[in-house]
Amino acid sequence: MGKSSYVLKGNVCYSKDQNTIVTYENQYLICVDGISMGVFEKIPDIYTGLKVVDYTDKLIIPGLSDLHTHAPQYAFRGLGMDHELLQWLELKTFPEEAKYADIEYAQKAYEIFADDMKTGATTRAAIFATIHVDSTILLMDLLEKTGIRAYVGKVNMDRNAPEYLLETDAEQSIQNTLRWLERCEGRYERIHPIITPRFIPTCTDELMSRLSEIQQQYQLPMQSHLSENQGEIAWVHELCPQAEFYGDAYERTGMFGGDVPTIMAHCVSSEEAEIQRMKERGVYVAHCPQSNSNLSSGIAPVYHYLEQGMNVGLGSDIAGGSSFSILRAMTDAIQVSKLRWRLQSGEGETQKPLTAAQAFYMGTKGGGSFFGKVGSFEAGYEFDAVVLDDSNLRHPQPLSVAERLERLLYLANETHVIHKYVSGESIF
Amino acid sequence: MGKSSYVLKGNVCYSKDQNTIVTYENQYLICVDGISMGVFEKIPDIYTGLKVVDYTDKLIIPGLSDLHTHAPQYAFRGLGMDHELLQWLELKTFPEEAKYADIEYAQKAYEIFADDMKTGATTRAAIFATIHVDSTILLMDLLEKTGIRAYVGKVNMDRNAPEYLLETDAEQSIQNTLRWLERCEGRYERIHPIITPRFIPTCTDELMSRLSEIQQQYQLPMQSHLSENQGEIAWVHELCPQAEFYGDAYERTGMFGGDVPTIMAHCVSSEEAEIQRMKERGVYVAHCPQSNSNLSSGIAPVYHYLEQGMNVGLGSDIAGGSSFSILRAMTDAIQVSKLRWRLQSGEGETQKPLTAAQAFYMGTKGGGSFFGKVGSFEAGYEFDAVVLDDSNLRHPQPLSVAERLERLLYLANETHVIHKYVSGESIF
Repeated sequence: MGKSSYVLKGNVCYSKDQNTIVTYENQYLICVDGISMGVFEKIPDIYTGLKVVDYTDKLIIPGLSDLHTHAPQYAFRGLGMDHELLQWLELKTFPEEAKYADIEYAQKAYEIFADDMKTGATTRAAIFATIHVDSTILLMDLLEKTGIRAYVGKVNMDRNAPEYLLETDAEQSIQNTLRWLERCEGRYERIHPIITPRFIPTCTDELMSRLSEIQQQYQLPMQSHLSENQGEIAWVHELCPQAEFYGDAYERTGMFGGDVPTIMAHCVSSEEAEIQRMKERGVYVAHCPQSNSNLSSGIAPVYHYLEQGMNVGLGSDIAGGSSFSILRAMTDAIQVSKLRWRLQSGEGETQKPLTAAQAFYMGTKGGGSFFGKVGSFEAGYEFDAVVLDDSNLRHPQPLSVAERLERLLYLANETHVIHKYVSGESIF
Repeated sequence: MGKSSYVLKGNVCYSKDQNTIVTYENQYLICVDGISMGVFEKIPDIYTGLKVVDYTDKLIIPGLSDLHTHAPQYAFRGLGMDHELLQWLELKTFPEEAKYADIEYAQKAYEIFADDMKTGATTRAAIFATIHVDSTILLMDLLEKTGIRAYVGKVNMDRNAPEYLLETDAEQSIQNTLRWLERCEGRYERIHPIITPRFIPTCTDELMSRLSEIQQQYQLPMQSHLSENQGEIAWVHELCPQAEFYGDAYERTGMFGGDVPTIMAHCVSSEEAEIQRMKERGVYVAHCPQSNSNLSSGIAPVYHYLEQGMNVGLGSDIAGGSSFSILRAMTDAIQVSKLRWRLQSGEGETQKPLTAAQAFYMGTKGGGSFFGKVGSFEAGYEFDAVVLDDSNLRHPQPLSVAERLERLLYLANETHVIHKYVSGESIF
């Protein structure tokens, strides 16, 4: 099935807003030219000629968006997790990322990542590659073939990392970036480049300012890390004493929301001024609860972000996070929000636990909006759909569609994902 | 294959002690009459006649022990998790448990639970049923057929719950218990009864003291809940003003370790005097990290318990916990321990994050010791083994057996469990 028009019959679920999941029992979800026409109890006359795909009793949910993940780290997810952050970067992350200078290794590793991205529930992603141009292009080529849609960033780093993983200076980093962007041009339908300075500590002021020029010239979005842990925040204060707060160091480069669609991963320990700046400038928070636990970073105040009406989505942050499932990220987000509520007392009403509706919203419509009209089945949305079969989760009592959805957030694994559509294309 | 003698060839992993996992690459694990003879590089001459089952390249780990779970709650795991504890008990738990007065409903529900226990990685469990004698016997019958080994408790409750789920008084509760124990006698090879007062708030002093007499008479182990959350602890102080602390209220009944093998679930907020008493009396802590997150209870100081040399195992606590996988419980335990370390500061060295070795120990040898010599492949241990196939977790780089084991703790689901042996019996 190409990017054509068809009807899916099944139990359709999506977020109306961050507090409301709507469910339709065995109704008709209509796709015309890759766009959702909405959900109907009976197929309207104008669509009766369309092919009907029967997913009766299955659940159909919007495609999930992963706002933050590192493709080269997929190879070592779930490994070395007893190390603390800096040890883990030195012993695992940096040596592993250096391997991607070797295109043959990259081929082996990225094929596995792309295969799993294809068959998982994620339809949109914002992905870090490495500093290497050739293997970044290879990753984009492989992802293009899967049918998912993603932003992929060649990483920039010109300081504060082992020499074997640094670009020699800002000039070389910029030349690499331009070479990468030239090779991207006209090459992809589904995959797009995104400016990706690793984070302030690994990028000189010169590099950041020249990346900002490239961002303007090519009109690209931007992704990076922000306020993940206290040591990092203190380090940024040292490196950029003129910045009011960590996020301000990005804004001073011209890349922190506003006209620049921006994702900042983590925001675990953002101070209130930083939060307000992110809100004003529409910066997306990629909340990565599993990574923030694995690396002892803490618990981001996500309930507060949602209450403020900020842009918030979920990220797997492979390999800080071990699981690349955004369904798992939803329940991880709920669970850590409850621990925050219990353990970080004195915050009153601003830090209540997240609900299932809020978590589902972040993984679909909330994060999806970074990619356009994505993450819902309301009329006019791009048609990203995931079909879930929960028949092996047997139950003695009747369950509503809403109950089955909540249960799947807690219990689903990749075997429950049986079909996927992205922007109308049938992926598997 | 019955409870016979054989050799398994594969990658064998087990805990030597709480800080050490030993691994053997494609070696021979020998079972004679249901007892492990240990792991050998070559099959010793005296065993060369035994059948060899070839699990080359698979991982073989000891059977996992679930020290705390509620069988009747399996039907609604992952449901209603947005409720807080008391609401959840009222709206979900109590109405659902009341259904087990109906033996036909119990049959449907417990069949599903028993089927999943059979094919999961758990080989030993301590299980709460409900107050109902007939359905508790039914659960035990179904579990006996699976081949796993478990303690199952008919629950006692004679106060502070909805009338539809209470026994009318201590006398009726005791008569029910005696009737249940009579029916158990001589009926089971693998399943055994365990005294199971739900917790102090739902059991009168009279009920507790008469349960203690039954415990003595029948020489049974005992399981209950302890110090799960602050409201509950305050309630126990009101109900038992003479008790020094919550655990002391159990000890005053005669059932709190010592000669009485005892499991206390949770121990999230145990004060130091309670901890020392548990240690002195060898009480087992069933650490249930997912439940303690889902119900906003907090994070138990498990690193401290292990450092003290206390008896600690893991519990799924279905349906407070949503997942019944003890592999998942291991990584949940690690992750929440890191959040405790980060968020409950000022505790210094007594509250470090758990390591993978400690978590694996709790789920195997630590919890297993409640059931005898269980949870290891050292010579003399009962032969509980789980065979894991991680071939769908592809990787571009070589991985050691230890690395593959760590990765499975984070990524395994039920589809990775391909064979199971309990006390020498092949289960599937």
